Amino acid sequence: MNRITPIRAAESDESGRARLPSLGEIGLDHFAPYLLNRIVARWNSDLSGRLKEHDLSTVEMRTLAVLSIMSGATVNELSVYTVTEQSTMSRTLDGMERDGLVRRQARTGDARVREVHVTEKGRALFRKFWPEMHDAFERMFEGFSGAEYETLVRLLTRALHNIRQHEM
Amino acid sequence: MNRITPIRAAESDESGRARLPSLGEIGLDHFAPYLLNRIVARWNSDLSGRLKEHDLSTVEMRTLAVLSIMSGATVNELSVYTVTEQSTMSRTLDGMERDGLVRRQARTGDARVREVHVTEKGRALFRKFWPEMHDAFERMFEGFSGAEYETLVRLLTRALHNIRQHEM
Repeated sequence: MNRITPIRAAESDESGRARLPSLGEIGLDHFAPYLLNRIVARWNSDLSGRLKEHDLSTVEMRTLAVLSIMSGATVNELSVYTVTEQSTMSRTLDGMERDGLVRRQARTGDARVREVHVTEKGRALFRKFWPEMHDAFERMFEGFSGAEYETLVRLLTRALHNIRQHEM
Repeated sequence: MNRITPIRAAESDESGRARLPSLGEIGLDHFAPYLLNRIVARWNSDLSGRLKEHDLSTVEMRTLAVLSIMSGATVNELSVYTVTEQSTMSRTLDGMERDGLVRRQARTGDARVREVHVTEKGRALFRKFWPEMHDAFERMFEGFSGAEYETLVRLLTRALHNIRQHEM
């Protein structure tokens, strides 16, 4: 494993084991999980303010977003992609089905699998919200060149790959 | 503003305005806010499992982490750095003070400002948890070179700077 800078800088203690750098030595502003949490909290709270005007919850919006590109996903897939617990996901889908935004149906060829499809009403709702989401997205990456954005996506993808183990 | 790749690729519609790319055109795996949310959710749930064994909540752990490097922070500063609402922060500090992990006192020279200090007991508790947090941190960035980690931190810092407006 290639160790990252703050770890590589660790000294050895009297027992010869590498001494862990403290959080203070790494520095909060240099501790990526801290930066990630700050960014995500800001992104989610910014979006949740905008969603209220569309009468949508964060989970509902994410469900519509995911289904807009992969209609027919399973509840399990949706819960992973929307970062939502399965029980919450199922409850959310109940409400969305009542509102005519999604419908669930057995998969052709394998009736045990229930697919979730987005309705035209659901698509229209996400299409209406998308410009605001895109706007927040643009603001977040203002000043980034295409190459910088690509680099960020590549590094985040590797970090996600490192930590997701029991997910898809 | 430099526009990032998926936006730059946008075509114009008949009215001459740039047409927004859809989420499907960008691709979920290429939409950084999605990757960020996935990573943060995994990080937080991984840590919260480990915290249970230390009888600590996520907010308590973050408070100890921040105070371990900036003892004397205000409630407002703590709520920003720990990404926690002020009311939750105050309630958490009440409990932590009862448990002897922190103490609050008036700032010398400005009695209107209440500082939060970590006690030796609080420091010891965080020191005990830190190796597990550092372990999760190492796992997340396994295989990253020092330069790659630096690049990630730099790009995240810029994104955070872009979206934080009413915070510190």
